[in-house]
Amino acid sequence: MRILVVNVNTTASITETIAEQARAVASPGTEIVGLTPYFGAESVEGNFESYLAAIAVMDRVMAYDQPFDAVIQAGYGEHGREGLQELLNVPVVDITEAAASTAMFLGHAYSVVTTLDRTVPLIEDRLKLAGLYQRCASVRASGMAVLELEEDPVAAMEAIVRQAELAIREDKAEVICLGCGGMAGLDEQIRQRTGVPVVDGVTAAVTIAESLVRLGLSTSKIRTYATPRPKKVIGWPGRLGR
Amino acid sequence: MRILVVNVNTTASITETIAEQARAVASPGTEIVGLTPYFGAESVEGNFESYLAAIAVMDRVMAYDQPFDAVIQAGYGEHGREGLQELLNVPVVDITEAAASTAMFLGHAYSVVTTLDRTVPLIEDRLKLAGLYQRCASVRASGMAVLELEEDPVAAMEAIVRQAELAIREDKAEVICLGCGGMAGLDEQIRQRTGVPVVDGVTAAVTIAESLVRLGLSTSKIRTYATPRPKKVIGWPGRLGR
Amino acid sequence: MRILVVNVNTTASITETIAEQARAVASPGTEIVGLTPYFGAESVEGNFESYLAAIAVMDRVMAYDQPFDAVIQAGYGEHGREGLQELLNVPVVDITEAAASTAMFLGHAYSVVTTLDRTVPLIEDRLKLAGLYQRCASVRASGMAVLELEEDPVAAMEAIVRQAELAIREDKAEVICLGCGGMAGLDEQIRQRTGVPVVDGVTAAVTIAESLVRLGLSTSKIRTYATPRPKKVIGWPGRLGR
Amino acid sequence: MRILVVNVNTTASITETIAEQARAVASPGTEIVGLTPYFGAESVEGNFESYLAAIAVMDRVMAYDQPFDAVIQAGYGEHGREGLQELLNVPVVDITEAAASTAMFLGHAYSVVTTLDRTVPLIEDRLKLAGLYQRCASVRASGMAVLELEEDPVAAMEAIVRQAELAIREDKAEVICLGCGGMAGLDEQIRQRTGVPVVDGVTAAVTIAESLVRLGLSTSKIRTYATPRPKKVIGWPGRLGR
Amino acid sequence: MRILVVNVNTTASITETIAEQARAVASPGTEIVGLTPYFGAESVEGNFESYLAAIAVMDRVMAYDQPFDAVIQAGYGEHGREGLQELLNVPVVDITEAAASTAMFLGHAYSVVTTLDRTVPLIEDRLKLAGLYQRCASVRASGMAVLELEEDPVAAMEAIVRQAELAIREDKAEVICLGCGGMAGLDEQIRQRTGVPVVDGVTAAVTIAESLVRLGLSTSKIRTYATPRPKKVIGWPGRLGR
Amino acid sequence: MRILVVNVNTTASITETIAEQARAVASPGTEIVGLTPYFGAESVEGNFESYLAAIAVMDRVMAYDQPFDAVIQAGYGEHGREGLQELLNVPVVDITEAAASTAMFLGHAYSVVTTLDRTVPLIEDRLKLAGLYQRCASVRASGMAVLELEEDPVAAMEAIVRQAELAIREDKAEVICLGCGGMAGLDEQIRQRTGVPVVDGVTAAVTIAESLVRLGLSTSKIRTYATPRPKKVIGWPGRLGR
Repeated sequence: MRILVVNVNTTASITETIAEQARAVASPGTEIVGLTPYFGAESVEGNFESYLAAIAVMDRVMAYDQPFDAVIQAGYGEHGREGLQELLNVPVVDITEAAASTAMFLGHAYSVVTTLDRTVPLIEDRLKLAGLYQRCASVRASGMAVLELEEDPVAAMEAIVRQAELAIREDKAEVICLGCGGMAGLDEQIRQRTGVPVVDGVTAAVTIAESLVRLGLSTSKIRTYATPRPKKVIGWPGRLGR
Repeated sequence: MRILVVNVNTTASITETIAEQARAVASPGTEIVGLTPYFGAESVEGNFESYLAAIAVMDRVMAYDQPFDAVIQAGYGEHGREGLQELLNVPVVDITEAAASTAMFLGHAYSVVTTLDRTVPLIEDRLKLAGLYQRCASVRASGMAVLELEEDPVAAMEAIVRQAELAIREDKAEVICLGCGGMAGLDEQIRQRTGVPVVDGVTAAVTIAESLVRLGLSTSKIRTYATPRPKKVIGWPGRLGR
Repeated sequence: MRILVVNVNTTASITETIAEQARAVASPGTEIVGLTPYFGAESVEGNFESYLAAIAVMDRVMAYDQPFDAVIQAGYGEHGREGLQELLNVPVVDITEAAASTAMFLGHAYSVVTTLDRTVPLIEDRLKLAGLYQRCASVRASGMAVLELEEDPVAAMEAIVRQAELAIREDKAEVICLGCGGMAGLDEQIRQRTGVPVVDGVTAAVTIAESLVRLGLSTSKIRTYATPRPKKVIGWPGRLGR
Repeated sequence: MRILVVNVNTTASITETIAEQARAVASPGTEIVGLTPYFGAESVEGNFESYLAAIAVMDRVMAYDQPFDAVIQAGYGEHGREGLQELLNVPVVDITEAAASTAMFLGHAYSVVTTLDRTVPLIEDRLKLAGLYQRCASVRASGMAVLELEEDPVAAMEAIVRQAELAIREDKAEVICLGCGGMAGLDEQIRQRTGVPVVDGVTAAVTIAESLVRLGLSTSKIRTYATPRPKKVIGWPGRLGR
Repeated sequence: MRILVVNVNTTASITETIAEQARAVASPGTEIVGLTPYFGAESVEGNFESYLAAIAVMDRVMAYDQPFDAVIQAGYGEHGREGLQELLNVPVVDITEAAASTAMFLGHAYSVVTTLDRTVPLIEDRLKLAGLYQRCASVRASGMAVLELEEDPVAAMEAIVRQAELAIREDKAEVICLGCGGMAGLDEQIRQRTGVPVVDGVTAAVTIAESLVRLGLSTSKIRTYATPRPKKVIGWPGRLGR
Repeated sequence: MRILVVNVNTTASITETIAEQARAVASPGTEIVGLTPYFGAESVEGNFESYLAAIAVMDRVMAYDQPFDAVIQAGYGEHGREGLQELLNVPVVDITEAAASTAMFLGHAYSVVTTLDRTVPLIEDRLKLAGLYQRCASVRASGMAVLELEEDPVAAMEAIVRQAELAIREDKAEVICLGCGGMAGLDEQIRQRTGVPVVDGVTAAVTIAESLVRLGLSTSKIRTYATPRPKKVIGWPGRLGR
């Protein structure tokens, strides 16, 4: 089976990190294709950038001209998953939801540790809409911007561990979710330092996408995610206009 | 003061209807400027179209080269308001929220009557995120598509009144919100037929936008709606890339 | 248009402060009439006093013998607005709700800074009933009694700013609501010191009341706020007994 | 021990019905004193009348010049209990809350059957504030006014049973609460006709008041229900002004 | 009337403490029978032990061969009450719910002070299911294990008072519930030291059980707590297999 | 990897149906071991039976003397999962939660169709505790007892389809979860008849259990699900007493 893992920003090195992380857990026989949007911001840390990413991800997936079995949207707390579900017949998995859904099998409450404080409300809102917020103990910001995760991985690790420890001690989290696609690969180290399960959204999403395909399940097309009605869509983006 | 009223679809006649409705309640001295996005769908009835509209509205506002004092996003249940708030320093008012907020001053519970059933979950989700859903008795679909409102206004009126009456009788609504920018102007007739206050989001938004300007209030830039960080935004849309 | 602004306590100087604040934002052509109840407490800081104020406000409004277009109940977190809505056919706006409703257009979360700690649960309860609590980050007490606001305005300012800063830093508020009618006029200074929008309930209520009148909207009389049934009301208060 | 059972309306025959019902379950040694307010409406069916009752009940209790051990406010869904708690050091029990609290020991969900539809939102709001609404399946109106319960008991019984049966079948209620002080005494018959436990708020309140006294427990005076601060209360009502 | 008070652990001295506490508040004519389960853990501090206690309590009650009028399950935050309700026709009262329900008549918010931190989520979950959590300010752990309450009562008292004071000051609790059957008898001392009402679940449950019996009310058998359907139950526990 | 799939009732043929369904989706290399409890009810349809099953499942798993990698509790809406999580270091997956969690990736709202009406509140409560209820449109009973599913599969299919169709049309469900372990294998047919995705909890649980093992994730032992403290557990069941 082939799974598209779509980055939400235009930084190709992050796409590569994400795709490698996905490949590390993919089943034999699963091909992971990493995609970088053709437009948008180099990192997504707010609503404007996130809305742009929503369209850029749809655009990039629609431009992909080979068959595929599932799509993973690899941005944490971003807009757009619902649009992809309308456009496609294969399952769509958002890593924010994948991580939360997985964490809830592992502990009574989970926390998310993310990048900048300004992204916290976006993540909270996405979890609330997804109906996965009730057992969320907190969403905490490490203060590291997305691109700093790559530039200074040691400082990033320290900042994330510090917030994870506070989440465990003060917010009573029993599981930590890594709240950024760019944190892929840090889970094992953080687990060792904090002593609790650490969930990376990308790898969680790979197993969920594979599972849905294996179970023969895909998005319900009966109401909310029905295929868009045929109508005139002008101007742009070309691939999305029909 | 100048208020931009931005349609979410690319149908200019709907923009005109909306702008006229806005002008009918604007204070003397308020100039209403109706804007139609440069791209997007002829009507917005689902997530893909709504996400596209989110960017198209931001794009259209950023392309406007005169000063303005407030922006009204004139789509019901659509994405994007948060992005506009990041990009601008003037107040941004979404008509979904304007209608609900106004209705809550008029009765114990309100219902929304909208177009197609597939848009109901989008409206519900936007009201939930906005924290305005608790007193929402129901969101009901008339079954009329956005463009049918213009094509067959008599049938539209009947369908809307029927659902409004059900909302009052079965869901215990005490106020009705018209759940589509294209319903602008129908409020008085529906009020007469149902006997309850009917709120049109466009006119409600005009008074709220004027009020915020008059009070000297605008979006808090301290966290969620802070100006986007300076970063590379590539590809497109040109006006949004910096 | 004429708007009655009714104080909830019997201290005439507070009524005057409130009315002046209201006049400062009223549109040309709007007459603001400040009313002081004929009975009740010199300041309202608890449930007994608030229930007494509920009746005293209704009594005072019913005793007003000129035509009017809207009523503002100028007490923060007080009982009674629902009763006024039953008795009147013109719109009734409570400043607690006006402030919260306005704040929600300006930021992702708001906090209220009020007077004494004992009034905090009353404000929270009114916001919960009004369906405006979900985006409330906190209600904080400055520790200043209502009458101390007048007696020692410098200390009051400092105490309010201190709590506003804590609300911003610890509770993640992005907007501050001034939680007492007697704080009218402090908003601009507090905004300058905290850097976030500050909403005064009185001025917010004036613009909302004007807007409702302009839109031709008033309280739904269909169920919760229907006119009281004709029945024997004995003893007192005379003006309310029919 | 002496328990004051205060009617919320000024109809003495209803006070008598309530007091007799209370006496029927009171322990040996408990004296039930029925009190009728000195002012207010002959029946309470809405917010204006309910706010007036709030003050009238406080007034009547403060005028009682003998010692007493607890107070029961015998109106369903009425305002005012919080004010009594501030004024008194003995326990105060509201029959709305007493009935719900008792019903929750008897079944998974309960419904309330009350008088007129216009009182339904008041009851719902009081239960929500009291934190007792989560397991409320529904509040249903029989359509009988308070005074009609006395005038036409047979029709009242039929109307109540009809709604109780609907609550059980459609709303999945497992227990019925009688939602009006004036329904005191109907519980046994309705239980026989519906086959589920039926809770009368007055008798439930008597056992709760007795229990609190027996346990030596009374209202916490530390914050919300602290004694009103000493201050000038003018005009009226004399007994409440100090 | 005879009330069975069933301990959830197998430590007979705790059963005795509980039963004595119950007797201290029981009405004249009420016989309190303390029962210790035949199997299970010496103290219950987690889910495995609590599930075992659920069955052990049912087993012990079914083995009791004399008539009885009500049952009190004397464990805080434990599973099983719903099962007893199915098996019996007399009222069943859980002390967790009895305490919360009673506390809600005494203050605006209550906190629970319990034993070990690991039991906090169990208590919170039981209160949530019971619909009694909304006004819960916090559940705090004293850090004392159940058996340490007996072994070192002085240290226990200090640890409980410390958490009660924090609950009052930081969480805004106005009432404290003692969150362990083994804390029976400490209420008066803690009340004196904290100045707020302190509710002991065992004594609260006795008055509620007596009240239900007095009111002629018992568990609704219509749906959730209907008698188990006749079916083959094999193996064990003998008394529960039919 | 070896996954234990534990039935909650003592009917071996149901264990076999469940295990076969599990094997049908298990990955190559995954061994499914079906286990039947040594004691308990032949079918579980209420709280007493469910609590007994909770202990019986723990007992059966502890008696299994070979290594295993994960456990699936194959009862819908049953108690006990939290106890297993304390006793084991490998992941534990409950089919109620597995189904809901999976359904939430497929549609905006899901419904559960289960057996008897009396089990509906149990399922709702388990979903609420699990934090998976927000997007649940309804839990509907087919009216077929567990054992009737085997005895009359044609009638069962009809009854389930009827409720699924009502859930879609009236409750706006977009996905159906089969609410009974014994419904394993019916999903494909129901999907064809209703046109929406149908989730079987057993197969969903298999893919989730495999995923957790593959990701190296297991239950957090830091608080709620920490290993039981060493203490005296007497009487029985032998395998659980230590």
